[in-house]
Amino acid sequence: MSDFKPFDAEFEARVRAFITGMPITRLLGLELARLGPGSSELVLPYREELSQGGGIFQAGVIGALADIAGGAAAGTLLPSGQVLMTVDYTVKLVAPGAGERLIARGEVAKPGHSLTVTSANVFASKEGRERLCAVALVTTMAIDLPKARRPDAGT
Amino acid sequence: MSDFKPFDAEFEARVRAFITGMPITRLLGLELARLGPGSSELVLPYREELSQGGGIFQAGVIGALADIAGGAAAGTLLPSGQVLMTVDYTVKLVAPGAGERLIARGEVAKPGHSLTVTSANVFASKEGRERLCAVALVTTMAIDLPKARRPDAGT
Amino acid sequence: MSDFKPFDAEFEARVRAFITGMPITRLLGLELARLGPGSSELVLPYREELSQGGGIFQAGVIGALADIAGGAAAGTLLPSGQVLMTVDYTVKLVAPGAGERLIARGEVAKPGHSLTVTSANVFASKEGRERLCAVALVTTMAIDLPKARRPDAGT
Amino acid sequence: MSDFKPFDAEFEARVRAFITGMPITRLLGLELARLGPGSSELVLPYREELSQGGGIFQAGVIGALADIAGGAAAGTLLPSGQVLMTVDYTVKLVAPGAGERLIARGEVAKPGHSLTVTSANVFASKEGRERLCAVALVTTMAIDLPKARRPDAGT
Repeated sequence: MSDFKPFDAEFEARVRAFITGMPITRLLGLELARLGPGSSELVLPYREELSQGGGIFQAGVIGALADIAGGAAAGTLLPSGQVLMTVDYTVKLVAPGAGERLIARGEVAKPGHSLTVTSANVFASKEGRERLCAVALVTTMAIDLPKARRPDAGT
Repeated sequence: MSDFKPFDAEFEARVRAFITGMPITRLLGLELARLGPGSSELVLPYREELSQGGGIFQAGVIGALADIAGGAAAGTLLPSGQVLMTVDYTVKLVAPGAGERLIARGEVAKPGHSLTVTSANVFASKEGRERLCAVALVTTMAIDLPKARRPDAGT
Repeated sequence: MSDFKPFDAEFEARVRAFITGMPITRLLGLELARLGPGSSELVLPYREELSQGGGIFQAGVIGALADIAGGAAAGTLLPSGQVLMTVDYTVKLVAPGAGERLIARGEVAKPGHSLTVTSANVFASKEGRERLCAVALVTTMAIDLPKARRPDAGT
Repeated sequence: MSDFKPFDAEFEARVRAFITGMPITRLLGLELARLGPGSSELVLPYREELSQGGGIFQAGVIGALADIAGGAAAGTLLPSGQVLMTVDYTVKLVAPGAGERLIARGEVAKPGHSLTVTSANVFASKEGRERLCAVALVTTMAIDLPKARRPDAGT
């Protein structure tokens, strides 16, 4: 589907360093499973702390996962020296987030110099079977990395 | 603005028990500041773990806060025996989430037997000054509490 | 992608009658190109009246088209005796709507007894080449057709 | 609520000329009732052509109205020489659009050099009584008016 061209060969290492370096990534226990040009796959193992109770991932956690998956996919098409900021995301919860893990797949719908729109689907994986639990659209804006910041300090 | 009538006098205790009982509330460190009929105020103190780095709350955390504020406001108008499920939320980030805490205020726009729509505004409080950092719309659906579940197990 | 099962063989005729019978369909000049189980394709030829000026379809028209494409796709999975009501749609405009026609394709993401979520992509076709100009998510709710209403009177 | 400062005293004439000059405004029969710094009020009288049947404004029409109200409100804060482009809108339909007219009120939530976020509420007026029928959030982007274009050619 996506035949996007990244700016350079370092896109994967750059996005991986960024995502894995975010403190929120560690708090959630988020894993970056796969990156391609314009696409991403993230995995979030279930822990009770991420739930609203009853073994169900809380909706805001599912939305946060979709946001990060969208940002990761969009980030693969960024040139070095730019970072992303989410400006908008919409998430529709279509089934309870019940399972051993959530899997979020981001796919750039339309890249842009300033704004990039990405769709992200979130699946709940239970006993080896995936079930769609949320669909999302994420808009990110590219901003120039402040020179004073460390490469991993952005968004 | 909101002249909504709760079903009974227990609405505040019920929503408070539900929100404070969610494991995600504890993971985030979320505080329930105020509840009224159709309205809510939640506070989220800054911790580096909630950031994307650089002292900024991560966008997905801001969205999760808006979702919970929306759900809390909608929950105040629920009868006993029903719980809410978020079916949709849209969040627009309008300024960086930089400050000592986030304050989210939910306000029911339109209650309904099945679907309720709530708006939530998120402010970043820095040195005593609040700045709007996100606006959101949240749709929740009321569902009957399964008899087998404990009163606080839903959402 | 979609391997949805319609309720009966009449689904296409039912949705076609509904969409083509809406007065707004005639005002816009909307054409229903294709329906399948869980999917739709609509075409909207350019007229200056649909523009904001400058030969560009106005954003609200693009959103209305996405809404109708989403509703048409969702409608194919409805049983006879129910109609749909849009409860929510989000549309992201990713390129100017410039061309001889817009083509909207709706695809059900998740059908439900009450709420169905559909994605709709809108393309601007110019000199035989399609270009994505908007992506949307549409949520519809099934409601029982009032007995007193004519079959085509719903939403 | 809004204590926004327009760039100059011509803001009202500029937005009025723009909105009333759009061909879609005439097709819909839209009236611009009021403009202030960061706010707008638009009125759309009912005609069967704007309906889905049954005397109800069609959802896409309601969304288009919200989009235009949002754009009009945002437009009041633009400097001369810039026009707006909608990049995103979300509309939640909370009650049937039944009445003699729709009234849409846009209010800027956060103006920005590039992106401005506006909320828009749509009311159905029936026998002199207004009822909220939709809430929306609209994001617009300011773009420099191409020199070659006439002042009213943008959006």
